[in-house]
Amino acid sequence: MTDWGTLAEQRLRDLSAISEPGPGVTRRPFTAEHRAAIDYLSDWMRQVGLTVTLDDAGTLVGRLDGPDGTGTLYTGSHQDSVREGGAYDGIMGVALPILALEKLREDGVHLPFAVEVLAFADEEGIRFPTALIGPRALAGTFDARVLDLKDNTGVTLRTALERFGLQPDNIPTLARAPETAIGFLETHIEQGPVLEAENEALGVVSTICGIERHQVTVYGRTGHAGTLPMQGRKDALVAAATLVTALNRLASETVDLRATVGELHVEPNVVNAVPREVRLTAEIRSPDDTVRESAGHALHRIVSKVAETLGLPIDVTRTYFQIAEPCDPEMIKTLCDSVREAGGRGPVLPSGATHDASAMAALCPIAMLFVRCREGVSHDPSEHASAADMGQAVEAIADFLARRSARAGP
Amino acid sequence: MTDWGTLAEQRLRDLSAISEPGPGVTRRPFTAEHRAAIDYLSDWMRQVGLTVTLDDAGTLVGRLDGPDGTGTLYTGSHQDSVREGGAYDGIMGVALPILALEKLREDGVHLPFAVEVLAFADEEGIRFPTALIGPRALAGTFDARVLDLKDNTGVTLRTALERFGLQPDNIPTLARAPETAIGFLETHIEQGPVLEAENEALGVVSTICGIERHQVTVYGRTGHAGTLPMQGRKDALVAAATLVTALNRLASETVDLRATVGELHVEPNVVNAVPREVRLTAEIRSPDDTVRESAGHALHRIVSKVAETLGLPIDVTRTYFQIAEPCDPEMIKTLCDSVREAGGRGPVLPSGATHDASAMAALCPIAMLFVRCREGVSHDPSEHASAADMGQAVEAIADFLARRSARAGP
Repeated sequence: MTDWGTLAEQRLRDLSAISEPGPGVTRRPFTAEHRAAIDYLSDWMRQVGLTVTLDDAGTLVGRLDGPDGTGTLYTGSHQDSVREGGAYDGIMGVALPILALEKLREDGVHLPFAVEVLAFADEEGIRFPTALIGPRALAGTFDARVLDLKDNTGVTLRTALERFGLQPDNIPTLARAPETAIGFLETHIEQGPVLEAENEALGVVSTICGIERHQVTVYGRTGHAGTLPMQGRKDALVAAATLVTALNRLASETVDLRATVGELHVEPNVVNAVPREVRLTAEIRSPDDTVRESAGHALHRIVSKVAETLGLPIDVTRTYFQIAEPCDPEMIKTLCDSVREAGGRGPVLPSGATHDASAMAALCPIAMLFVRCREGVSHDPSEHASAADMGQAVEAIADFLARRSARAGP
Repeated sequence: MTDWGTLAEQRLRDLSAISEPGPGVTRRPFTAEHRAAIDYLSDWMRQVGLTVTLDDAGTLVGRLDGPDGTGTLYTGSHQDSVREGGAYDGIMGVALPILALEKLREDGVHLPFAVEVLAFADEEGIRFPTALIGPRALAGTFDARVLDLKDNTGVTLRTALERFGLQPDNIPTLARAPETAIGFLETHIEQGPVLEAENEALGVVSTICGIERHQVTVYGRTGHAGTLPMQGRKDALVAAATLVTALNRLASETVDLRATVGELHVEPNVVNAVPREVRLTAEIRSPDDTVRESAGHALHRIVSKVAETLGLPIDVTRTYFQIAEPCDPEMIKTLCDSVREAGGRGPVLPSGATHDASAMAALCPIAMLFVRCREGVSHDPSEHASAADMGQAVEAIADFLARRSARAGP
């Protein structure tokens, strides 16, 4: 019997070697490394019987045709990595579906619909200040203005695409017809500790969390740490500390809420001066938009209360938000059945991070399969998913495709 | 009647013009500006009948001899400023005693002891990583190893002194005999808001506060702000915020205690990552060493409790301490009488900041007269003390010298 986990491990080892020098994997979009990854994946896809094309958004498409007039089920993820990232984030979600199609071929299963395995160019957004060009192009939500954005060497996205042999002006023509799109299944490492804690190899995503970010500025008054009495101080850091604590307590006590103050800057930031100003970010995520929005309102109330109690002004501005993208209930159900068939319990959990599926949701129903990763670590050379877990994922993906077949048809 | 306040204002305006270009006053030790200040002060001192010398530590000494065999009462402060500082910090404490001696001469008072008005070279420590060379030389506590310390252009203190025409090897010979030193009176702006709040021009210092500084490092665990559940997080900033709040509460609830977290750094300090590490400084000041030391112990207990509650290691190290320097009770009493004579109530308050008097305490009894400054602001171009308040200070200093006279004698 074929050991799909070991095959997955070998493929990902080959792909991890396609990297800029340095620790871990660095593979940026529209570079020599991207080209080498395309060449490697193209050869492999052809061996599995797929028809390979590269679209003008840089997405590598491996297509297995179905009977005439049937729709297409999309699967895949992104080929790019963060700088000095790991060997699994993104690329594993391209490799495992190819192996699942190999398995179905080995098992003699013929699908009654077409399948396209997609290797998107850029999900991480580390080269250009934008991301998700590939899935947005397919969903028809690509905004051509991003073509003028530059990387840190001054090269525009348009120029980078052209130098890569692509025609950026064709991107709007890539949009697929929703009525032919059956759905999109993305496989990804969890990037969190939940599956490990539950001793499960695989999990099924319920929803991709919505996000909002707030910029908070506390305006205190500085003074000499020795000469300024405690009474009457307007210490911006004391106020900020109260905010950090209160927001953390709110999130800890609220189901389905995560809140983080990740960034904090103190002025003048010297040992013997009372802090004059603190700028901090507050990020709130939830699979439930109502929970997220009421946490945002709660943050405003916390800020008002601290400002009033300590007698100093605090600005809070929502700088970004993105609604939650629920996965398709029917696809979730099928995927849970497939995970159970592959030997798991089929736990359902939200995705705290954004994925290509977030953008594909504008085209068709989405589903996501999470694979356990060691200690929840991601975006780091030590990122790891085991061969056994990946093998189980290949079984689940193949089973998912076969189950969809059973329900497909005219 | 002579308006001593207006005269003080004129002298300080002249002296504030002796500055490097830029906002406010920048007068670093052993520079052309220092030389110009020495020249200005020397002329003025001679007009008042003082004998002027420059010692090898760069201290300008204006001496009014007393009868043979009598001791010397020292007064003065520092001539240097911080970068882009104000026109009062330091130099006002040189100018007002000269005016007080002018007043005594005008009043026909002959003192039964010698007076030396001292203009120390460097109290702020902005050029070399050391300070208080002048008073330490007089007190016999000068450490010759500091002569090898360099400014940021690579010039050693030794070279700077030599280029200024001084002989650094003579510094150890400058030590005065304690038996001939009656005391040291330093006049300085308060650099805090207490006198303004009490509506008093002048205050008498009880003690120069002791200081201790701690370096605290919180070792958390980072992770993706979206994928890491709240439960089980080791958020270094949440732990640090708890420390900031607890230390602030301790100081606010403890008499004679000031505590400040002035500096705080977050790693990796990005919007969507749980903070991995926070480094912060905790500074504790008190006029009472027992209070300061027990606050230091309390900080250690707070740190242990937070570390245990949140389950992450926290390092805390005391990196610096300096004991409190109490002012002389008899000098305090006399100075309070003189302040009352000049029209004030004579409030007594601690000095949160260190001064030249801190070093002179190793030689003789010390006293300090604080002058109200606008909004407690110092080390800033907007630093201000009013002519009226300075006039009142000249009256008080002259009265103090005259009262000491009444008690002096063989």
